[in-house]
Amino acid sequence: MENPFFMPLQQKPVILLMCGSFNPITNMHLRLFEIARDYLQDDGRYKVVKGILSPVSDHYKKKGLISASHRVEMARLATKGSDWIHVDAWESEQDAWIETIKRKALSCKIISSYLYFLFADQAKVMLLCGADVLHSFCVKDLWKKEDIEEIVGRFGILCVSRHGSSVPRQLIQDVDILWKCRFNIHIVDNWILNATSSTDVRREARRGHSVRFLVPDAVAKYIEGNRVYTDKSEQINSNSCLAPFSIHRRPETS
Amino acid sequence: MENPFFMPLQQKPVILLMCGSFNPITNMHLRLFEIARDYLQDDGRYKVVKGILSPVSDHYKKKGLISASHRVEMARLATKGSDWIHVDAWESEQDAWIETIKRKALSCKIISSYLYFLFADQAKVMLLCGADVLHSFCVKDLWKKEDIEEIVGRFGILCVSRHGSSVPRQLIQDVDILWKCRFNIHIVDNWILNATSSTDVRREARRGHSVRFLVPDAVAKYIEGNRVYTDKSEQINSNSCLAPFSIHRRPETS
Amino acid sequence: MENPFFMPLQQKPVILLMCGSFNPITNMHLRLFEIARDYLQDDGRYKVVKGILSPVSDHYKKKGLISASHRVEMARLATKGSDWIHVDAWESEQDAWIETIKRKALSCKIISSYLYFLFADQAKVMLLCGADVLHSFCVKDLWKKEDIEEIVGRFGILCVSRHGSSVPRQLIQDVDILWKCRFNIHIVDNWILNATSSTDVRREARRGHSVRFLVPDAVAKYIEGNRVYTDKSEQINSNSCLAPFSIHRRPETS
Amino acid sequence: MENPFFMPLQQKPVILLMCGSFNPITNMHLRLFEIARDYLQDDGRYKVVKGILSPVSDHYKKKGLISASHRVEMARLATKGSDWIHVDAWESEQDAWIETIKRKALSCKIISSYLYFLFADQAKVMLLCGADVLHSFCVKDLWKKEDIEEIVGRFGILCVSRHGSSVPRQLIQDVDILWKCRFNIHIVDNWILNATSSTDVRREARRGHSVRFLVPDAVAKYIEGNRVYTDKSEQINSNSCLAPFSIHRRPETS
Amino acid sequence: MENPFFMPLQQKPVILLMCGSFNPITNMHLRLFEIARDYLQDDGRYKVVKGILSPVSDHYKKKGLISASHRVEMARLATKGSDWIHVDAWESEQDAWIETIKRKALSCKIISSYLYFLFADQAKVMLLCGADVLHSFCVKDLWKKEDIEEIVGRFGILCVSRHGSSVPRQLIQDVDILWKCRFNIHIVDNWILNATSSTDVRREARRGHSVRFLVPDAVAKYIEGNRVYTDKSEQINSNSCLAPFSIHRRPETS
Amino acid sequence: MENPFFMPLQQKPVILLMCGSFNPITNMHLRLFEIARDYLQDDGRYKVVKGILSPVSDHYKKKGLISASHRVEMARLATKGSDWIHVDAWESEQDAWIETIKRKALSCKIISSYLYFLFADQAKVMLLCGADVLHSFCVKDLWKKEDIEEIVGRFGILCVSRHGSSVPRQLIQDVDILWKCRFNIHIVDNWILNATSSTDVRREARRGHSVRFLVPDAVAKYIEGNRVYTDKSEQINSNSCLAPFSIHRRPETS
Repeated sequence: MENPFFMPLQQKPVILLMCGSFNPITNMHLRLFEIARDYLQDDGRYKVVKGILSPVSDHYKKKGLISASHRVEMARLATKGSDWIHVDAWESEQDAWIETIKRKALSCKIISSYLYFLFADQAKVMLLCGADVLHSFCVKDLWKKEDIEEIVGRFGILCVSRHGSSVPRQLIQDVDILWKCRFNIHIVDNWILNATSSTDVRREARRGHSVRFLVPDAVAKYIEGNRVYTDKSEQINSNSCLAPFSIHRRPETS
Repeated sequence: MENPFFMPLQQKPVILLMCGSFNPITNMHLRLFEIARDYLQDDGRYKVVKGILSPVSDHYKKKGLISASHRVEMARLATKGSDWIHVDAWESEQDAWIETIKRKALSCKIISSYLYFLFADQAKVMLLCGADVLHSFCVKDLWKKEDIEEIVGRFGILCVSRHGSSVPRQLIQDVDILWKCRFNIHIVDNWILNATSSTDVRREARRGHSVRFLVPDAVAKYIEGNRVYTDKSEQINSNSCLAPFSIHRRPETS
Repeated sequence: MENPFFMPLQQKPVILLMCGSFNPITNMHLRLFEIARDYLQDDGRYKVVKGILSPVSDHYKKKGLISASHRVEMARLATKGSDWIHVDAWESEQDAWIETIKRKALSCKIISSYLYFLFADQAKVMLLCGADVLHSFCVKDLWKKEDIEEIVGRFGILCVSRHGSSVPRQLIQDVDILWKCRFNIHIVDNWILNATSSTDVRREARRGHSVRFLVPDAVAKYIEGNRVYTDKSEQINSNSCLAPFSIHRRPETS
Repeated sequence: MENPFFMPLQQKPVILLMCGSFNPITNMHLRLFEIARDYLQDDGRYKVVKGILSPVSDHYKKKGLISASHRVEMARLATKGSDWIHVDAWESEQDAWIETIKRKALSCKIISSYLYFLFADQAKVMLLCGADVLHSFCVKDLWKKEDIEEIVGRFGILCVSRHGSSVPRQLIQDVDILWKCRFNIHIVDNWILNATSSTDVRREARRGHSVRFLVPDAVAKYIEGNRVYTDKSEQINSNSCLAPFSIHRRPETS
Repeated sequence: MENPFFMPLQQKPVILLMCGSFNPITNMHLRLFEIARDYLQDDGRYKVVKGILSPVSDHYKKKGLISASHRVEMARLATKGSDWIHVDAWESEQDAWIETIKRKALSCKIISSYLYFLFADQAKVMLLCGADVLHSFCVKDLWKKEDIEEIVGRFGILCVSRHGSSVPRQLIQDVDILWKCRFNIHIVDNWILNATSSTDVRREARRGHSVRFLVPDAVAKYIEGNRVYTDKSEQINSNSCLAPFSIHRRPETS
Repeated sequence: MENPFFMPLQQKPVILLMCGSFNPITNMHLRLFEIARDYLQDDGRYKVVKGILSPVSDHYKKKGLISASHRVEMARLATKGSDWIHVDAWESEQDAWIETIKRKALSCKIISSYLYFLFADQAKVMLLCGADVLHSFCVKDLWKKEDIEEIVGRFGILCVSRHGSSVPRQLIQDVDILWKCRFNIHIVDNWILNATSSTDVRREARRGHSVRFLVPDAVAKYIEGNRVYTDKSEQINSNSCLAPFSIHRRPETS
C-alpha cells in the first residue's frame, strides 16, 4: 500500500551518492543502498534510478588507506551483480585538485562539486550516509556553514540510522542549521543490526582470518588472492597528520 | 521555513482528539496538544483547527477513577485559557451504551464512534496519543483487527514519543498491520522530558502535598478546595476486575 | 503522620533561596519550591515562611542571557498566584559590585552575601538547588573552600535530586568537605520526572513554537507578546569568555 | 563532626537484629552490621549496644538449607572476634511453634515475636536488612498489613542499600504503608559494592574451590573441614514447596 | 603465531555441525562457520575438515516454516562457492522418525543421532551454535539430562557469543551440568556485530523489499524469483502448538 | 572432572606474582589469588606452588601512599593464615634503583626484573592482575613494546575480569600486540562481585568508621591501633606530579 496522501502524476527520479574510503567495500555499504531505495520507493514519490559509490582519492591520507586502484576494483567486483549500483572513479582520480583541499576531513568541496556535476533538473541527487556524517556537520570548524546549507538545503541527505537510534533525530532538534533544513533530511531506520566496518575486515584479513560473508565473495577472493591487507599496509599514512582527529583541531582557515 | 517539497494550494484542516481518564488532567496532557499542533503546522500541509479532550465515562471502572463531573470540570478549568483546546463531555455521559462494551480497556468502539461523529469531509480527525496506545494495538485480543484498520487506516494517529524513543518506530516495523498503515501514523518526538502522570498527582494530593505546577493553577485550586483525591477516593473500583491488566487476559469474546 | 522521634516545642522558620538565570523561569523552577516546602514541613521540625527567587545580573554574561528587566518581570508574573514565593531583584541590580567578581561562574560571593543579608536568628536560610550546584562545589578552583564551608556549614542546602539518583549522595560520600557538612545538606528526591530547561523553552520560542504548559500561562503570553527569545537574542554574549566551561579552566587566582 | 541540629542529653541505645538463613554467614552479612553501626552513631542520637544474628530454623525448608547446628556454629565462629555482634540460637530452635507458620516466607511472626522479646524501654530494637526485605513488604499476601505496621511502625528498619540505589527510596514513595512509616525506615547507602551471596559460597565450596576471603577464615576452615556443602546438601528440600516463589503464589489463607 | 604451549604431533580433525531452520539461510549462519574454523585452527590443535548445515524437517512445525525442498535448495546455493561447508539433507528427510519426537523444540534426539552418525575415531564432531542453544539446555524439561551430557560431554559445543557477551560464560558458571562439561564447551567471541535473522529476511521479502546483502546473491535471486516468502507463507503452522514457547510449558512427559 | 583433552605426565608448577600499592591490602586482593589458583588447578595442567605479594616502594609517589613498612606489615598480617601466599619486601626496598625509573606508572622494569629473578625452568611465573593492567598496556607511551612482549610473551598474565566483563577480551581483539600473545593471557571471570578498593578502606578509616570485613581482622586492628590512615596521611605526595594521570601525558623518553 503506497502512501495515500500524495498521488503524484509522476515519480521524481533520484540518484543516491555514497562517498567514503571503501577500504574495502563491505556488505554493509551495499546494504545501505538497498535500504535507501526501498524507503524512497515505498514513499511513492520517488524512483531511484542510480546508486553511485565514489571512493576517496589516495590523497585523503587516512591511516591504512590502500591504493585507490585496489579500492575501486573491489567496489566494481562488489557491484557487478547489481543493475543499479555503480562505481564512479572520478573522485578517486582528482589528484591535483584534491591537493588544494587535502586538509578537509570529509572532502566537502568534492562532495558538493560532485553533487553539482551529477545534478540535472531531471534527477534529484541525495547524499547517502550514516549518522556519523550528520554528526560531522555539527563539529565546530569542520564544515563551512554555506557548504552545509548547499549540501543539505539544495540537494538532500538520506541518513540511515541504526535500530531506531535517537541520535540523528536529536541532532536535528539541537542544531539550528539542521533543524532549518529538516525537510531535506530523511532519517531511515535500519532495523537489521549489522556493524561490519572496513576496519574489522582489514584486521581479520591481516590476521589471516576469513573475511567471507562480511564482503561479497568476489571481494573476499580479491583480498585473499592479492593479500592487499597486511601489517605493513595498515601502516600506510600512519605518521600523517590528516586523520580526522587532527583536522577537528586544526581546521583549514581559508 | 516550511517544507519546500509540498506547495499545497490549501492546507487541510485537522481536529486532534485525545481520549483518557484525565483523573486529573495534567500539564503533560495539555502539552501534547501543543507539540502535536506545532508539528503538523510546521509540516505546511495541515491547519489544526481544534483539539478535543474526551474524558472517559465512570463506567470505565478504573481504580481510583473519581466522578466524571469532577474530571470534566477540571479539564474545563485547565483549557479555559486556550483558544483551540476544548473539552467534550459526550463520551463521559454515554452511560447506557458504554455498559455494553464496559470490558474493553481502551473503549475502542467509543473512539471509533466518536471519530465518525467528528468526521466530515472538511476536516481530518486524528487520534492524539502516547506510545502506550500504539502498543495496545499489538496486545493480543485487546483490539479487533477491523477496528485498528479503521482507526489507523481511515482516520490517523499522531503518537507523541518520549525523547526520540525507538519504541513506536520499532512497533510499526514489527507489526504487519501498523506497517501497512504507516503513512497514517505520525511519530512526533517530544524532546522535553516530562513524565508527570495523573497517578503521581493523585498520590501527592492525597498525601497533603502541593500539586501546583504539575497541573494548571485553577486545577490545583480545585483539587485542594474540593479535596477530590483522598485515600478513600483511591479505593474506588479497587475490587473491580476491569483494570487493563485483567482485560488483557480475559478479553471480550463476542 | 509526622516524624515521631522529634517533638519540637516550636518549628524552626525557614527561608528558601534559589539563585539562577531564570531565562526564563519554568514550571520546573517553581515546582522545586513546592517539593522543598512539602519535604521540610513533613519533617515536622520546620516551617517554610518564604521562598525567594533571585535572578542573576546581566553581568553574568551567559550566552543568550536577555535583560534582567525581562527575566525579573517573567519571574514576577510566574509567582503572582503564590502566597509564599517571591522575586527579589536585589542581586540582578548589583551591577558595580558584581563587576569585581565577574569571573565567578556561580557568583558564590553574591550568594553568601545574600544569605547573610537574609539571615536572622529567627529564620534559617537554605539554598535551594539541583544536583548540579552540589557538583559545582567539587570542581577544582571554582569555589573557595571557605565559601563552601560557609554556605553549606553555616546556612544549609536543600538539593532536589532527580528520581532517586545516586549522584548527590555519591558526591557527599566522595568529597571530604561535603561529607563533613552532610547534616546540613538535605537531599530531596523528586520522583515526578520533569526535565524542562530554560534552554528548551528558548529554543521552542525562537522557532515559533508554543511554550505553553512548560511555563506558567502569563509567562507564555509575555514571551509571545514581547518576542523576547529570537535567533538574535540567543547570540547575546556568544563571544564572551565567561561561560562556565572557560571559567573552570581559568579560575580567579586571587 | 556530629549532627549539629540535635544535641541529645543522652544517646538512645539501639539493638540491631538481622534474620536470615546464614547458609553460610559471609563477610557481607557481617559488614552490614558495621555499616549500620557507623551510620547510627555518626548521627549522634544513637548508641548501638548490640548486634544479634538470628539464623532461621530448619523448618524454613529452603533449598540447600543445611542443619541449624552447622549454621549457628559458623555464625559463632564468624563473630568470635567481635565485641558487639552475637549469635542468638533461639529462633533456630523454635521447632514446634514455627511449624504453625511454616508457610510464611519471611517468618514474619517470629520476627515480630522476637522483636517484642528483645524490646525493653531502655533499648530501641531495629531490624537490619537489605532492600529485598523492604521489597517483600510490598508483595501481595506475603505479609499482613498489621505485621508490617508493627515491625516498621513500632520498632524500625535499617535498610542497607547498594551503592545509592534508588530502589528502597522508590518503594517508600510508591507504597502507602511504607510512606506512612517513613520516619522509622533508615536507608543507609553502602558505597563499597560487594555482592557475595551465601549461594555463591555454597557453589564454590561444592565445586571444591576456595571460599577464603568470602567468609571469615574460621568459617572457611569449618566448611572445608566438615565438607558441609556438597552436591548432596544442595538437594536438601529441593522438592519442598516452601520456596519463597511458591509462597508468593499460594499464601497462607488464615 | 600459534599457541606455543602445545606442540601436537598431529592436529585433530574436526567436523562442525549446525542445525536449524535455515528459513532462509543468511550471511550470519555462514559467517559462524568461518569464525569457528578460524578460532579452532588458530588454536593449533585442530584442523577443521568439514562444516555441515542440517536443515530441520518440515515436521518441526515452526510458524512460517516453508518446505524443506526450498530451504535445502537455498542452503545449497549459499554454499556453492565454499570448499568446506556443505548441506546435508538427511535430517530434513527423516519424516517418519521425526514424527515420534515432534514435540521436542530443538530435536535433540536427531542431533545426537546425527552426531553419532558422523562420529568416527578419525574426526571430532562439534555442534556449532549461538548462545540461545546453550541457554536452551537450562530450560526446565526441554532437554533430558542424559542428552545434554551426551551432546556436551561426549561430542562438544562451539558456541559463538555476540561481542564478548557474558551470557554464555555466566550460564556455564551457574548451571552445574554445563560447569562439569566446561572443557568441552568453546566460547568464541564474534566481535563483528551482525544480528541478521531469518525472521528479518522473511519480513523484508514479504513486504517486497530487497534482501540483497543479507543473504548470498544466489539466495536473494531464488527468494525473488520463486516468491517463497509471502504473507501466506508466514501463516504456515500458525495454529500449531509446537512453537518453542508452548513446548517450554507443555514438555514431553515420557 | 578435569580437562579431558590434555593428559599431562606432570603438572607445571606456577608462581603467581601480584604487584601494587597494597595501601592497605584488602580481602579483594587476597581473593584474586584464590580465584587464580582454583582456575589454574581446575585446568589440570598447572600446580600453583606460590603466590607472591610485592608492595611498591615509597618512591612510587602515589597520593596517600603511606610508608612501605606499614604496608608490608599489613600484607604480612593478612597472609599469616595462608600456606601459599607470601609477601616479598624486595621491590619495596629497591630505593636507589627505583629512583632511575621513578616516572614509570606501573614500574614495568621492576616487574620484569622481578619476573626474571623468580624465574627458573622449574616454575612458570605469571603476573596476576585486574583488567586495568591489561588496559595500561594499550596506553600510548606508557610501556615499551619490548617490555610488553617480554612480560606477556615470555612470562604470562592471569587477568581477573569482573563478572564476565567483555573489556579484557575486547582489548585482546583490538590491540595487535596483545592478540599476538593471546595464548599467554588467561582471562578468569570473577563472578562474585566485590569492588572493595584500598581507597575506600582508607576513606572509611580516616572518617573513623569500621573497616572490619573489608580487610582481614588483623589488618583492621593494625589500622585502628596505629591510626595509619588520617586526613594528614591522605595528603602524602598530594603535590607530586607522579600520579598516573600526569605520567600518561609526560612519559619517560629514554
